[in-house]
Amino acid sequence: MKRKLLLALVATATVATAHAQVKVEDAIKWRQSAYATMGWSMGRIKANLDGTYNKDEVVKAANVIQAIANSGMGALYVPGSDKGKGWAETRVKPELFTDGAKVGKLAGDFNQAANELAKVAASGDAAAVKTAFGKVGGSCKACHDDYRKDNK
Amino acid sequence: MKRKLLLALVATATVATAHAQVKVEDAIKWRQSAYATMGWSMGRIKANLDGTYNKDEVVKAANVIQAIANSGMGALYVPGSDKGKGWAETRVKPELFTDGAKVGKLAGDFNQAANELAKVAASGDAAAVKTAFGKVGGSCKACHDDYRKDNK
Ligand code: HEC
Ligand code: HEC
Repeated sequence: MKRKLLLALVATATVATAHAQVKVEDAIKWRQSAYATMGWSMGRIKANLDGTYNKDEVVKAANVIQAIANSGMGALYVPGSDKGKGWAETRVKPELFTDGAKVGKLAGDFNQAANELAKVAASGDAAAVKTAFGKVGGSCKACHDDYRKDNK
Repeated sequence: MKRKLLLALVATATVATAHAQVKVEDAIKWRQSAYATMGWSMGRIKANLDGTYNKDEVVKAANVIQAIANSGMGALYVPGSDKGKGWAETRVKPELFTDGAKVGKLAGDFNQAANELAKVAASGDAAAVKTAFGKVGGSCKACHDDYRKDNK
């Protein structure tokens, strides 16, 4: 019985480790990567809206944004990752780790906007994509305004 | 008439620019970012297979891999990007730019494996995910073996 309890505790500890084991440098690198991948995708959609519209291109880019928006990036804001270096020194502001409700609201707005963009991209309606694209861009900016340091 | 032709040419040139204007440093940064984002996602799936399986976590990660696999990353191998610095010095081997058919085959295998992984992830069948995950991992490795330089 004692042994079983010990095994259960060890198992729990292992699971907890599996979740907690994301290293600070990796967490920062991965969030910088995921954001930069969305930056690429937003640029592609903008090029399509400004130039010749190619539905297929826009769908691909919107799907990347949607998948990343829904990926649960919150897990990459591990304790201690308010400082440190991934690909580069992190640009997160410490407030992101303490403004729980506000960050949750911004993340939720972003999520919703990304889902809407993927939906209208699939419809091929360029005017609707333009509107949805603007909303996604606004939700990126809202977060950056409050929680990302300016580039030196 | 002459003016119309000129305008048409200018318009064409602008469109061509819209496609060609990806800068080498951006292209390298974006492909490093997209690959690293998939690395994060593969790690998450592995943690779920090795520890407690959470269907939702695996679906999110698999969807990211699928969306990136289908995003048309080939566009990020712009001419001249066999050398240069994105987040870091590129690790691509020059052969990737010349082995057209072989690279296409590897990219196709990867694509198919990523689509299969997303499909079985949605079904929640952990054993099937394990198999599909192995195939995706193999397709990443196949490309790295031939086209990515070792880390110094
Ligand atoms: C909930 C907050 C939040 C949302 C939403 C958000 N970002 Fe960010 N973004 C950040 C933070 C914080 C950083 C800094 C990350 C770090 O360095 O650790 C960042 C960094 C970036 C970077 C910089 C990577 C580099 O080169 O340093 C880019 C590009 C970027 N975001 C684009 C986007 C785009 C595009 C969107 C929307 C499609 C978006 N972000 C949505 C918070 C957010
Ligand atoms: C068709 C080729 C190809 C496929 C498929 C591929 N990769 Fe790569 N990968 C590369 C190349 C080339 C680089 C180097 C990119 C650069 O530095 O410009 C790279 C770089 C990386 C990096 C390094 C980023 C860093 O930290 O330097 C990671 C991580 C990675 N790939 C993971 C993956 C994963 C995970 C998969 C599959 C889910 C995958 N790759 C599929 C070719 C590929």
